[in-house]
Amino acid sequence: MSQQSSDRSEGDLRNTGMSLKHDREWDYELERIEEAVEERDAETVGLQFPEGLKRRGPAVADDIRELIDADVTVMLSGQPCYGACDLDTFLMKRSDVFVHFGHSPMKESEKIIYVPLFSNVDPFPIMEESLEELSAPTEDAADPDEPVDPDVGLVTTAQHMNRFDEMREWLEERGYSVHVRRGDERLTHEGQVLGCNYASADVDADQVLYVGGGKFHPLGLAMEHPEKTVVIADPVNNVVTLADTEQFLKQRYASVHKAMDAEKWGVIYCTKIGQGRWEQAEAILEDNDDAYLITMDEVTPDRLRNFAMDAFVNTGCPRITTDDGPQFHKPMLTPGEYEIAVGNEPLDSLSFDTFHGTW
Amino acid sequence: MSQQSSDRSEGDLRNTGMSLKHDREWDYELERIEEAVEERDAETVGLQFPEGLKRRGPAVADDIRELIDADVTVMLSGQPCYGACDLDTFLMKRSDVFVHFGHSPMKESEKIIYVPLFSNVDPFPIMEESLEELSAPTEDAADPDEPVDPDVGLVTTAQHMNRFDEMREWLEERGYSVHVRRGDERLTHEGQVLGCNYASADVDADQVLYVGGGKFHPLGLAMEHPEKTVVIADPVNNVVTLADTEQFLKQRYASVHKAMDAEKWGVIYCTKIGQGRWEQAEAILEDNDDAYLITMDEVTPDRLRNFAMDAFVNTGCPRITTDDGPQFHKPMLTPGEYEIAVGNEPLDSLSFDTFHGTW
Repeated sequence: MSQQSSDRSEGDLRNTGMSLKHDREWDYELERIEEAVEERDAETVGLQFPEGLKRRGPAVADDIRELIDADVTVMLSGQPCYGACDLDTFLMKRSDVFVHFGHSPMKESEKIIYVPLFSNVDPFPIMEESLEELSAPTEDAADPDEPVDPDVGLVTTAQHMNRFDEMREWLEERGYSVHVRRGDERLTHEGQVLGCNYASADVDADQVLYVGGGKFHPLGLAMEHPEKTVVIADPVNNVVTLADTEQFLKQRYASVHKAMDAEKWGVIYCTKIGQGRWEQAEAILEDNDDAYLITMDEVTPDRLRNFAMDAFVNTGCPRITTDDGPQFHKPMLTPGEYEIAVGNEPLDSLSFDTFHGTW
Repeated sequence: MSQQSSDRSEGDLRNTGMSLKHDREWDYELERIEEAVEERDAETVGLQFPEGLKRRGPAVADDIRELIDADVTVMLSGQPCYGACDLDTFLMKRSDVFVHFGHSPMKESEKIIYVPLFSNVDPFPIMEESLEELSAPTEDAADPDEPVDPDVGLVTTAQHMNRFDEMREWLEERGYSVHVRRGDERLTHEGQVLGCNYASADVDADQVLYVGGGKFHPLGLAMEHPEKTVVIADPVNNVVTLADTEQFLKQRYASVHKAMDAEKWGVIYCTKIGQGRWEQAEAILEDNDDAYLITMDEVTPDRLRNFAMDAFVNTGCPRITTDDGPQFHKPMLTPGEYEIAVGNEPLDSLSFDTFHGTW
């Protein structure tokens, strides 16, 4: 598409890689896309980027167009995208080759090429710092020459998954007994967590080391595993913290309390391919004559303002409820919180809403 | 669903009708919906309202639920909706009976019940006032006893379509020769205009009387038929005006001029069922190596801010371009305006972007 003045356009990573803030660079795996276009004799290629990377889309499209036949139509998804659960199904149907960037596969399909875009940040300096927060190896009282390897769970996000084996070895070399597991079918890799699924931290260790950026992933992790100490080693922002669920719980309980007087409930069913929980939505409707089912893809404050409900329960993406909840004009609860608000479950049953399965 | 304290809930129109500002009330045609649910042995009913009526949805759902079997699941579309071109295709697929309120059919289908929601506002007082702006019947110089019936075109919107025949007769009784026609297949009724289609005003008369609310419909009408005087009789706001395209044209030319220096063009293809013009989008891509195809359903400033383009050309709903254009961070043009900006067409070819056909 765009003919830029330099020989290589911004998204071109074939030789030099692309520098961003925090020294992140990504491999867009252009050859893999090129091969798929040729193999399938594709006439249309659809590209989908998550929000933070959308602005790179046109440059990546340029690079792909340089590699493939000029007759092939390259299309960019302009839909919001917040995960591998959030495929642009319209563009997917319209494309012979559909490339989803920035997430690991939630469900494999012949049509979809997932390009994970692994981070190139070195995780070990910040892991070194995080050791101060972990129980250190100790001597065995019975045999002082034999150290006791403390148990630690290790998890990370898709972005850093390419270094996961190295991370595990690095911890083992320092005397830790490292526990890892693959979560459920929603997760591609051993040790991987999503913003809505922490099943891979369900290991036999009282402490879990989370290597990754962001504050919401480890918060969900700590909420989902309240009996464990969650140490956060964030290699992007170069900081070590402990997950603290107190403020989060206060916010959630405040929403539940506000919703306790609600008469009319809006029950949101999300139509995004990987964010629908139909059975949960139906169960609430069957149980509550004052509940109204509302279907939508993007769940936004603007869209809900149209409905004169007293409270909402969101069966879609849990992160919208917990992270964006205060932006809605009425209390927005998870399905579990709804059960508390209407009196079906006790207050202390409040837990983090996680999402399992694919579609 | 909600059991309200009064016998009849807010949306119940079976006997009394519902009063709103401007004295508008609507017939939701509940019996027709009830019959369809029974005939089709439906398990799911989907309801879609345009933006201005969404807040009525839950009450209408209540009324429908009182009429049908309790096992039937009633669902409300939470997607934005701006016309019969904008069916919630997800909800439609998921519903045994799908009811689209507030617009006349763009395309009939066995599954869809269109409930037009005709206005009950009396159009004749404001039509009486509008006569001052129309050429009045005159005497024939050759035969002073014989008046000359002046030609006038008559158009209105779906909302007032139920009074169209009366309007025509009313004008004829006052000595006018009334010209009406059905537009193209995008339009259901004779004399009907849409915000994107004014083909029904293509009649043999120098003056057209538009009966209806809003300022954008008659503006599009005047732009599409620049050789005609367009008199606006607005029975909702009770005002008569003449459509004035000057300011509108200034705004459009300003956008075109701003876009003339653009190198990178974002070409928007709208994925809404009745708003896609694929051939137009493809033609631009083929003609311009610096054009990038972006697909989306809702075309909003937020979504486009993700793309570092110099200008956009919108092949979707023309009203987004003309009515919301200034809200976008870069110039947003219609396909015709794009041709001017890139030098393929002369400046004076600027015209209103209309939309034809269905899907």
